[in-house]
Order: sequence, then C-alpha cells, then structure tokens
Amino acid sequence: MSDFPDTAARLIRAIDDWPEAGVTFRDITPLLADPQGLAATVSALVEAAKAFGPLDVVAGVEARGFLLAPLIAEALGIGLVPVRKAGKLPARTLSESYSLEYGDAIVEIHADAVPEGARVLIVDDVLATGGTLAAAGRLFERAGAVVAGNLVLIELPALGGRAVLGDVPLTALLEY
Amino acid sequence: MSDFPDTAARLIRAIDDWPEAGVTFRDITPLLADPQGLAATVSALVEAAKAFGPLDVVAGVEARGFLLAPLIAEALGIGLVPVRKAGKLPARTLSESYSLEYGDAIVEIHADAVPEGARVLIVDDVLATGGTLAAAGRLFERAGAVVAGNLVLIELPALGGRAVLGDVPLTALLEY
Repeated sequence: MSDFPDTAARLIRAIDDWPEAGVTFRDITPLLADPQGLAATVSALVEAAKAFGPLDVVAGVEARGFLLAPLIAEALGIGLVPVRKAGKLPARTLSESYSLEYGDAIVEIHADAVPEGARVLIVDDVLATGGTLAAAGRLFERAGAVVAGNLVLIELPALGGRAVLGDVPLTALLEY
Repeated sequence: MSDFPDTAARLIRAIDDWPEAGVTFRDITPLLADPQGLAATVSALVEAAKAFGPLDVVAGVEARGFLLAPLIAEALGIGLVPVRKAGKLPARTLSESYSLEYGDAIVEIHADAVPEGARVLIVDDVLATGGTLAAAGRLFERAGAVVAGNLVLIELPALGGRAVLGDVPLTALLEY
C-alpha cells in the first residue's frame, strides 16, 4: 500500500482532449501493464476493501471495473459478480438506467446474482458523475443485498459524484 | 486444479436459445460468484498459464476476458494488458478487424502496450470461431511481441476456432 501513490503517479498517464476536447483522461493501462504497478494496485485495493468490514461479494462494473474487481474478490476469498451493460447477461436480469450527457445508459445484473442479505462492495476504475455506481447500487438493493460501499481507483471530485452516492461509503485511492 | 472440472460442471449453467434460437450459452457467472468456484477457476487458469513457459504479459480480451486475465497476471507477478473494442483506448492504438456472422468487429491495443519481444498469453472466456483471439494475436505480433499462447475457460470445438488460431498453442480448461 505504502508505495501505491508514488507508483500510480509515475505510471498513470494523462491523455489530453480525450474522449473530447477539454477533458483530460487518466489512463491506467500503463499502471496495470507494469508488474510492480499491478501488484501495488492490488495491495492498495485489498487493504481499502478490508476497511468496509465483512463482505460477501465484490461487484465489478463493466468494463474497466472488470480489471480490478476479480483481484479483490480472489484476495478476500469471496465471490465476483459483474455489473454489465444492457443485453449482455443471458439469464433473467434486473436493470437500472442512468443519465449520461447525451441520453441514458443501462446497467444490469442477473436477478439471482447475489444471496439475500449479502454485503456487496462495488468496484470501478473511476468515479466521475456517480451515475453508474449509483445505478449499480440500486440494482443490488433491489436484489435484496446490502451495498457495503463503493471502491474506485480514481475520484474526479470536480464532477460531484460522491454526493450522488448519498450515504453509501466511498473510498477512492487517488484524486485528480 | 483437481476439483475444477467438477466445480465447473456444477456451477456453469446452460442457457438455451441465447443469444439466439438454437444456441446454448454457457454462463460462467455462477462459477465466478461462488467463492470456491472462483478459487478453483483461478488455480486451474494459473496452472495452465505456467505450462506456456516464461511469460511477460497477460492480455485479457474485452469484456469477459477482463474477469479472468487479471487473476493470472497477478498470480504470475507479470503485467496485464487489455484488448479492447474499437474506440475505447485513449492513446495511439493498433487495430485489427475480424468477421462476425453479420459484419465486422474491431479489437485494439495501445501501440506501446507491450515491450519489444515480450511473451504474451492471451486470455478469454470462450473460444468459439476464433476470430477475436486470432485478431488479438495479430495485434501483439504487430506490436513486436511474441504470442506464447491462448488460454480460455471454455472451447466450443464444433465451431472450429482451434484451426483458425493456426500454430499458436491453445489451452482450454473445458469443452462443450
């Protein structure tokens, strides 16, 4: 954990004007591609996850959350559940929509993805406006689970996502 | 490893007529959601990965390959590289297209994703027609890497994907 902030600062790269002019995108792919960077990321995520108390399930949000959530689930010895975009899951699903800058998007989980009362940690790479994580949280509540918290690698505080998540605890390893 | 086939047989579920009539989809989400299933899956994947000899990078194919590749990379202490759908990567990319039943699809990696000569293991959930994995392999060759092999959880031999991959070694943990 202790070397994570330095490692991340060295390996996360800023891409200007992506996905659109005026936006600076934080690209975590060099961090994950570096063996020391990946190991430091896993250690930091797992330590942060443990602070949420007992957990039964780690949920990863498609697509970049899928790169992080499995590492936490495996380290904690608990299950892994994907939160997917619309139409990707084959069995009966629950769906929640949320607003994007232009139009809406939908996230889904299988209706039987989690046991009743399971404590779920929802993981994504970045907290921006909070719409995706809030919708994911509503999915697990509808499924009868308890959202123990949200864990992201990067928070962009200027976009106000933390307020959108309300009372659900959020940990971000880095802020930009 | 030894309990993986039994665990997988118990937890992977068959969904008939998905994504279209006449197709039986093998849904791995119950396997990953089960703590014992996830642990057995990781053990089997890591053991299979080690048989490819020295590796420098594990590449995961979007989206379900993202759920598996990180676990292997972390266990082997090497880097993780995503193979993404078109338009998702922020820096300069290499692109390869491949044929689907209706039209084409594109996969991409960052042009600087791997060091010259790196030995790459490409990981996905299912080998069907082989188009995606073959295109991913071409990406890494163009980037100057060596494709050490392909590793999938499930092979559907009736679809002939193994032949499409040519001389690149393939390991599948299960066949349906």
